[in-house]
Amino acid sequence: MDFFRRDPPKTSAAMAKERLQLILTHEHQGNMGSEPDYLPALRQELLEVISKHAGIDLNEVSVSLERKPDKEVLEVNVVLPRHDAH
Amino acid sequence: MDFFRRDPPKTSAAMAKERLQLILTHEHQGNMGSEPDYLPALRQELLEVISKHAGIDLNEVSVSLERKPDKEVLEVNVVLPRHDAH
Repeated sequence: MDFFRRDPPKTSAAMAKERLQLILTHEHQGNMGSEPDYLPALRQELLEVISKHAGIDLNEVSVSLERKPDKEVLEVNVVLPRHDAH
Repeated sequence: MDFFRRDPPKTSAAMAKERLQLILTHEHQGNMGSEPDYLPALRQELLEVISKHAGIDLNEVSVSLERKPDKEVLEVNVVLPRHDAH
């Protein structure tokens, strides 16, 4: 802790952040055993689209994939610095 | 009700359906007024990626966009017939 700090942290306005969250749920009735062939490629491409448009590196993206017997849930979380017009 | 039906309805296994749901949430602290420039294009491209991989027409996709002061939520719902290997 630095009690003598001269430059206070940026205000919340200046530090305003954007968050992007994408959740893709694939749900199936019955016991089909395997997920459809297209699902892994779909997930990958969704990540790439987010990365491209939001101008971020895929390494900065938090991704989790949860598999349950009747569904798979992809969750993508991105925290972006506030955007400036460009 | 037809008690004399000779061909029972397909079993649940045969009628198994897949559902795809995509939710994209853009959240921002502070009052930035407008959404980032890239967001509409990002939404559109996510829809196209889903449509392409799942082999469906964009017209078959149910899409809603909810705008609140601090966030926008895109919700996409697709019901697919059960998949067969192709």
